[in-house]
Amino acid sequence: MTETRHSAVETRGPTGTLERHGPIGTQRDKGPGAADGQEAEALLRQARASVDPELRAAIASLPVSMRRIALYHFGWEHADGTPAEGNAGKAIRPALVLASAAALGGTGARAAAVRAAVAVELVHNFSLLHDDVMDRDTTRRHRPTAWTVFGDADAILAGDALQALALRLLAADPHPASAAAVTRLADCVVELCAGQHADTAMERRGPDEVTLEETLAMAEAKTGALLGCACALGGLYAGATEEDVEALDAFGREAGLAFQLIDDVIGIWGDPCRTGKPAGADLAVRKKSLPVVAALTSGTPAAVELAELYGVPYEDDKEELERIALAVERAGGRDWAQAKAADRMARAMHELSRAVPDPEAAGGLLSLAEFVTRRST
Amino acid sequence: MTETRHSAVETRGPTGTLERHGPIGTQRDKGPGAADGQEAEALLRQARASVDPELRAAIASLPVSMRRIALYHFGWEHADGTPAEGNAGKAIRPALVLASAAALGGTGARAAAVRAAVAVELVHNFSLLHDDVMDRDTTRRHRPTAWTVFGDADAILAGDALQALALRLLAADPHPASAAAVTRLADCVVELCAGQHADTAMERRGPDEVTLEETLAMAEAKTGALLGCACALGGLYAGATEEDVEALDAFGREAGLAFQLIDDVIGIWGDPCRTGKPAGADLAVRKKSLPVVAALTSGTPAAVELAELYGVPYEDDKEELERIALAVERAGGRDWAQAKAADRMARAMHELSRAVPDPEAAGGLLSLAEFVTRRST
Repeated sequence: MTETRHSAVETRGPTGTLERHGPIGTQRDKGPGAADGQEAEALLRQARASVDPELRAAIASLPVSMRRIALYHFGWEHADGTPAEGNAGKAIRPALVLASAAALGGTGARAAAVRAAVAVELVHNFSLLHDDVMDRDTTRRHRPTAWTVFGDADAILAGDALQALALRLLAADPHPASAAAVTRLADCVVELCAGQHADTAMERRGPDEVTLEETLAMAEAKTGALLGCACALGGLYAGATEEDVEALDAFGREAGLAFQLIDDVIGIWGDPCRTGKPAGADLAVRKKSLPVVAALTSGTPAAVELAELYGVPYEDDKEELERIALAVERAGGRDWAQAKAADRMARAMHELSRAVPDPEAAGGLLSLAEFVTRRST
Repeated sequence: MTETRHSAVETRGPTGTLERHGPIGTQRDKGPGAADGQEAEALLRQARASVDPELRAAIASLPVSMRRIALYHFGWEHADGTPAEGNAGKAIRPALVLASAAALGGTGARAAAVRAAVAVELVHNFSLLHDDVMDRDTTRRHRPTAWTVFGDADAILAGDALQALALRLLAADPHPASAAAVTRLADCVVELCAGQHADTAMERRGPDEVTLEETLAMAEAKTGALLGCACALGGLYAGATEEDVEALDAFGREAGLAFQLIDDVIGIWGDPCRTGKPAGADLAVRKKSLPVVAALTSGTPAAVELAELYGVPYEDDKEELERIALAVERAGGRDWAQAKAADRMARAMHELSRAVPDPEAAGGLLSLAEFVTRRST
């Protein structure tokens, strides 16, 4: 759930290929239309169109005080309550639910799974509302975050209400997968909480006090868990076997890890014109992102230099940021992240082929996984 | 959920009768043993004994980071992780779930409803964790609140996890009432959020900007809703009709309102030896409690004096607190609260008699309702 900080990435058009470092997951079989991201963009548009009516109806069912904050957060209202054009995000998670249901159960399962897609989107936004309060992030999807507009208390309460709404929506669904879906989504919420805890706890520690293993575990809980859950819920709504549901969960988790690795690379070397945040933004706040921790724990001379640089707070010194970026690169952090992302995508493809052996049926999920990990570095 | 601020009230022994103002709800038929509170105390002890094993197992299922905060909050661990004797509260809500199930379905239904009782207790504690963060309350059940020990972020996350755990527990229950119970409890969470929002919003406004109607609505959402939901869930687990479930919900809500009215009276005139908080504590923080708002909106000369006094922040002036308490009393706030509490208890009894016509079967719920509203003023 970290990605939306790079908000401009979310709204830009078709992205370029990873020219400088080669494509991620080149060992995969490409599904139809996956190569250029057009299929993924169509799936995202369709997911947004399928989900929005029920999502808006769910928000409309809230008491007026909670509704107002939620409508603002989703970009459907301005702070003064007047209608806004809306930018509720890329709908990656709902698209994964629907593509997963379609892959295993066809259009009927996709239609039945819309409610599950709405629930996943509600949980994602509950976590964004709360994370922004905790992280004191002031911008989300190009707008002031809810807590900066309504205060901490209201942002916390609106998040609480969205979590309840998500689980309620699934519980009230007469679909036979309802109870299993609530259980799975609630488990995912607990994992998201543990991931956010690990993230905030790690950020408080020194550069030499964080292991790569725990950083990966944190990224899996914070980002992988909900992508995995989205895929698993789609499988549940398609009546998939427990084994296939687990494989879909693993597919989403691995793709989520690959995504986070690439997202972290962008946070260091990303082109600000493309990403909407300046190169080195993560370095300026001394974020212990995956490439940084890989570099710090590499045992290289550059790691020692990096630890020294990272131990001192940033003071508007762009040359220093370049020195840090170079140290991360020389310590192997960038290559490691690229290789690891490719590795995770390969694992994701393997899990996908287990759950959905037919490449034609797997095409949608494949193109979505490629889309979220295809980023310019 | 406001009551636990008067934390000493929760742990004191059998309470006295309302000698100075007469008993609340004197028009009711007394169930066996209800008069002296002994039956209620036995029911609370039994509820705690029935609920604790499953509650502890649910907490134990959390990831270690969330578990630690929850164990501290429930009083089962000290801040350093060593075991504590524990004071998880009076278990009023679990006792209402179990008594409600027993009233309509006997011992079998009571046994089946333990999980619902645990879920209600988890939701109650989720709301306490979050409310304490928002209200900056530093003490809960005689101990520093979780956010003062672990920080805001961890208290928010632990609350989030407890909400998820509560709804998950019900959803994973093979009992036929499972889905309806999740739906109802999730709706209650949304109502709790709206109630807490109203409370914080009202506290920010001036003394002449709050109506009695909205104060009552806030109290119903903040306190009545979860007591009502507890009773309703007990009914659902006993296989009660929709009509009876609604009557049980209304019983719990009305009793909850009566409880809040008495609690607010204690917050102004309460004996500090009995309540653990000094008389006038609510007045010192200029709390817009029910008797105060009733006084402020009474149209009496004392109301004008009260508004003037309440508009100025408290500055360690005990005589001023006495003047304010007197103004509330002269404006009729105290009498109104007493009469309204009696009225609400009468309504509660009426709803109870609809759902459980047999006075013998209704005895447990009756004694619990009496217990929570029998307070020394």
